[in-house]
Amino acid sequence: MVVKAYGAYAADKPLEEIDIERRRPGPGDVRIQIAYCGVCHSDLHTVRSEWSGTLYPCVPGHEIVGSVTAVGGAVGKFKVGDVVGVGCMVDSCQDCPACSDGLEQYCENGFIGTYNAPTADSPGHTLGGYSRQIVVDEKFVLRISHPVEQLAAVAPLLCAGITTYSPLRHWKVGPGTKVGIVGIGGLGHMGVKLAHAMGAHTVAFTTSESKREDARALGADEVIVSRSAEEMNAHANSFDFILNTVAASHDLDAYTTLLKRDGTMALVGVPEHPHPSPNVAPLIFKRRAIAGSLIGGIAETQEMLDFCAERGIVSDIEMIRIQQIDEAYERMLKSDVKYRFVIDNASLEG
Amino acid sequence: MVVKAYGAYAADKPLEEIDIERRRPGPGDVRIQIAYCGVCHSDLHTVRSEWSGTLYPCVPGHEIVGSVTAVGGAVGKFKVGDVVGVGCMVDSCQDCPACSDGLEQYCENGFIGTYNAPTADSPGHTLGGYSRQIVVDEKFVLRISHPVEQLAAVAPLLCAGITTYSPLRHWKVGPGTKVGIVGIGGLGHMGVKLAHAMGAHTVAFTTSESKREDARALGADEVIVSRSAEEMNAHANSFDFILNTVAASHDLDAYTTLLKRDGTMALVGVPEHPHPSPNVAPLIFKRRAIAGSLIGGIAETQEMLDFCAERGIVSDIEMIRIQQIDEAYERMLKSDVKYRFVIDNASLEG
Repeated sequence: MVVKAYGAYAADKPLEEIDIERRRPGPGDVRIQIAYCGVCHSDLHTVRSEWSGTLYPCVPGHEIVGSVTAVGGAVGKFKVGDVVGVGCMVDSCQDCPACSDGLEQYCENGFIGTYNAPTADSPGHTLGGYSRQIVVDEKFVLRISHPVEQLAAVAPLLCAGITTYSPLRHWKVGPGTKVGIVGIGGLGHMGVKLAHAMGAHTVAFTTSESKREDARALGADEVIVSRSAEEMNAHANSFDFILNTVAASHDLDAYTTLLKRDGTMALVGVPEHPHPSPNVAPLIFKRRAIAGSLIGGIAETQEMLDFCAERGIVSDIEMIRIQQIDEAYERMLKSDVKYRFVIDNASLEG
Repeated sequence: MVVKAYGAYAADKPLEEIDIERRRPGPGDVRIQIAYCGVCHSDLHTVRSEWSGTLYPCVPGHEIVGSVTAVGGAVGKFKVGDVVGVGCMVDSCQDCPACSDGLEQYCENGFIGTYNAPTADSPGHTLGGYSRQIVVDEKFVLRISHPVEQLAAVAPLLCAGITTYSPLRHWKVGPGTKVGIVGIGGLGHMGVKLAHAMGAHTVAFTTSESKREDARALGADEVIVSRSAEEMNAHANSFDFILNTVAASHDLDAYTTLLKRDGTMALVGVPEHPHPSPNVAPLIFKRRAIAGSLIGGIAETQEMLDFCAERGIVSDIEMIRIQQIDEAYERMLKSDVKYRFVIDNASLEG
């Protein structure tokens, strides 16, 4: 089946309208009419081959929501008309210890990303959500129970939401814990909403005084402007957990020293240039840790979606037409978006 | 009471014989005739003011063993003649959450180190175990139940032993876990012995082919020469925990990539120059962590000493007279010791 999409033929070419093929749904497959697709920094990095290894043509997009238009004969969880989502993964080995533990994102044989990963489908690598339809194994399809009018704002939950939800759960954030969220962008604004909803005392860190009120509105109990040494020092040794969503290279010591004994700071972004080497003394003298975390497993993604639906949590978004994608990328690079662009995929039809 | 000691009057002066004062034992104090004192890298760093902030005269030494020669009226745990030890701490606030949790090494008001820490005693800072006697609050005195002929080899347990025992316990090393010990020196050789005794599959990492047999003799199930990329790669993603005892600046990524998903590498040494900035991708893509750990609490130190006594575990030592201390420092800097120098404190009497 030929499907309208938007992608790039080379790292130095702009995205343009292209026709792609989607496989006929197999027995376990779900075909989805994509209503909306969130715009993630990874999309931009990949389509411009900034992490190298991009396969072209490249069609990005892994914050996908839409409705089921066909199901294979063996599909048990979904039927035509269901409202569903697809995140960063469309397959994994289903056999290794990580997959057996429901942690497909850590699949020991490598999960299959929603774009730029090997597949038997044409053209030999996966093509993402900047497209009108997608066909995905039902095991990697999520049920969405938010009201349909919130659907566009649900899209970013599939990457930004789960990337922040999973570490908050893993490090047991909840009532009685004090949690910091570093960076109030696409990921961070979800981190603030989710940590607050989990019942934690939630502190937002931002470099910009102008985001102070915004962060409070998102649910932060306190906001720290990280350029103020005085504000930072006042919180020394006080955090149980810090979720650091900033992918740009920055001084990690400023945050590790704010952790309590046995506290952890989890990083979720890979910087283009390394962070300055963290001082190990703040780790040793309080048994603190710097860790990493990658998206979340499928079961946990469903749990996150249900958690958000029950509480009316969605992303704060700005809707764009696909034809505005380059402009959106430029604005995203300047952090000029509150807080996530979402493509109205109907615009693919012109 | 005037006591013979060995110390330095300035960073650029050699250690020499000096007379120091020890306080009259208070109600809760124990006076100890020091039989042996281990020689730790920290002694050298401090006496030469390489970490800055050294107070002179400086008398190092925090791996102290000996026998009780006097007790205050309120002392309940010890009597004259008991064989005891003192490690890196001689006091703490006893009031903060860390002290309440038995983790005096993380005292929120700062523990009082056995040397170079503030005290009401003359000369205003603590003086360590390169001396004939010491007076210590019984709360910081440990009971030693090893056979008396092993006493010299017990001394390094008070720092090297607990510094490795505590993280191995904290990160739940035992049967069924695969543990790496990086660096086979004063700390690392204890790490190998202790991890092995805890029942873990113990892998020693060394830069030198010549230590391969030695590491096996210490109890390593496997030995990896870290200069061999082939040997290193064969162990990718396989360690539950790595204890990194190397204080010199080195590439941490070589070890983080050997951890399983959710594995931790704990650092126990502060390098003079920072490690190269660790790559965060190996942390993110397997939810791994880099943490730190500092010695151990008093209760845990007693637990470690009892664990070792029950199993006949001591340090491998080379005994020296105090007059050989400069030579010992020079050899320690070249790692020319298997694996810890211990001073025979009787040599202070000439």
